[in-house]
Amino acid sequence: MVGSPVVNMYPLSSYTFGTKEPKMEKDTSVADRLARMKVNYMKEGMRTSVEGILLVQEHRHPHILLLQIGNTFCKLPGGRLKPGENEIEGLKRKLSSKLGANSLSLQPDWQIGECAAIWWRPNFETVMYPYCPPHITKPKECKKLFIVHLSEREYFAVPKNLKLLAVPLFELYDNVHRYGPVISTIPQQLSRFQFNMMTT
Amino acid sequence: MVGSPVVNMYPLSSYTFGTKEPKMEKDTSVADRLARMKVNYMKEGMRTSVEGILLVQEHRHPHILLLQIGNTFCKLPGGRLKPGENEIEGLKRKLSSKLGANSLSLQPDWQIGECAAIWWRPNFETVMYPYCPPHITKPKECKKLFIVHLSEREYFAVPKNLKLLAVPLFELYDNVHRYGPVISTIPQQLSRFQFNMMTT
Repeated sequence: MVGSPVVNMYPLSSYTFGTKEPKMEKDTSVADRLARMKVNYMKEGMRTSVEGILLVQEHRHPHILLLQIGNTFCKLPGGRLKPGENEIEGLKRKLSSKLGANSLSLQPDWQIGECAAIWWRPNFETVMYPYCPPHITKPKECKKLFIVHLSEREYFAVPKNLKLLAVPLFELYDNVHRYGPVISTIPQQLSRFQFNMMTT
Repeated sequence: MVGSPVVNMYPLSSYTFGTKEPKMEKDTSVADRLARMKVNYMKEGMRTSVEGILLVQEHRHPHILLLQIGNTFCKLPGGRLKPGENEIEGLKRKLSSKLGANSLSLQPDWQIGECAAIWWRPNFETVMYPYCPPHITKPKECKKLFIVHLSEREYFAVPKNLKLLAVPLFELYDNVHRYGPVISTIPQQLSRFQFNMMTT
């Protein structure tokens, strides 16, 4: 029997947010994205991507930091690993690229914690599953979500073309239409954790 | 960073299934059930219930053991803790009551593992959430789901009024209509585990 892991959660107001140069999306359409995925698969094999679940509290309720592109699409900070790259180191690199300051001395000391979920892409299509479907011997992508344990104070630099939102669990829950299957079931994956609501 | 926990999964055919006396539901309607919940809450405070996720494999895909009542409603084996009862001991007691042989010597040695999810019932209503909603200071029920690690061989005695089904993850996933919000998102909660598909 393993006890409930603990996540300390600080108020959103204890963090500082600045901006930095835009990080443009590599693809301008879903079709482009799937085509690029196919080309990369031919060169490097299965894509492994890593994403971070960064938690803050507001009114003692957990909120997740999401990057918003335009007015609709939201995503977790993260991205694709380089071939052979360690997943923890790769996630730190991606978090710094998406949310870290350009100055190394202002970079958060990312504390990567528990794996919350793993999703599989069986084909060069948008649909993913929280298991590798039967009869799929060569999945095209494996995406891992990790809890990122934030310190009491951090400085985040948000690319100018993106917005950083703190979205409450009650907004994500049962909202696949707005957030998609991966993000909308994060509340279920976090339910086993014990949240320490910190005040500063 | 915590590594992926491992679950060994044996073929369904390595288990033996018998029957025992019926275990009737205590309530004949949802309204009766919520009324009984209210009476118990007045006497004992918040209800704590525990349920077990028992895993087997078929064709190397994970399946969950569910108890079916009549032709539609499915539930995980488990139930309500007695006031002050330890949750692990309580889950073992409930698993023996639902699935154990009457003879003590044939009882499985239940190995209760990781907590997979926790659900909260804010009011005397059917709806539950994977978090305690904001402004709810007195939730009416807390339900915890635990992985149960099965041995290579077990004998299960199924109450005569129930059917024990091995349901594949791909059937549960995205199937809230058939299995409800708690059971249909078990695939997401299991995705972080590493499954060892054992052959016997």
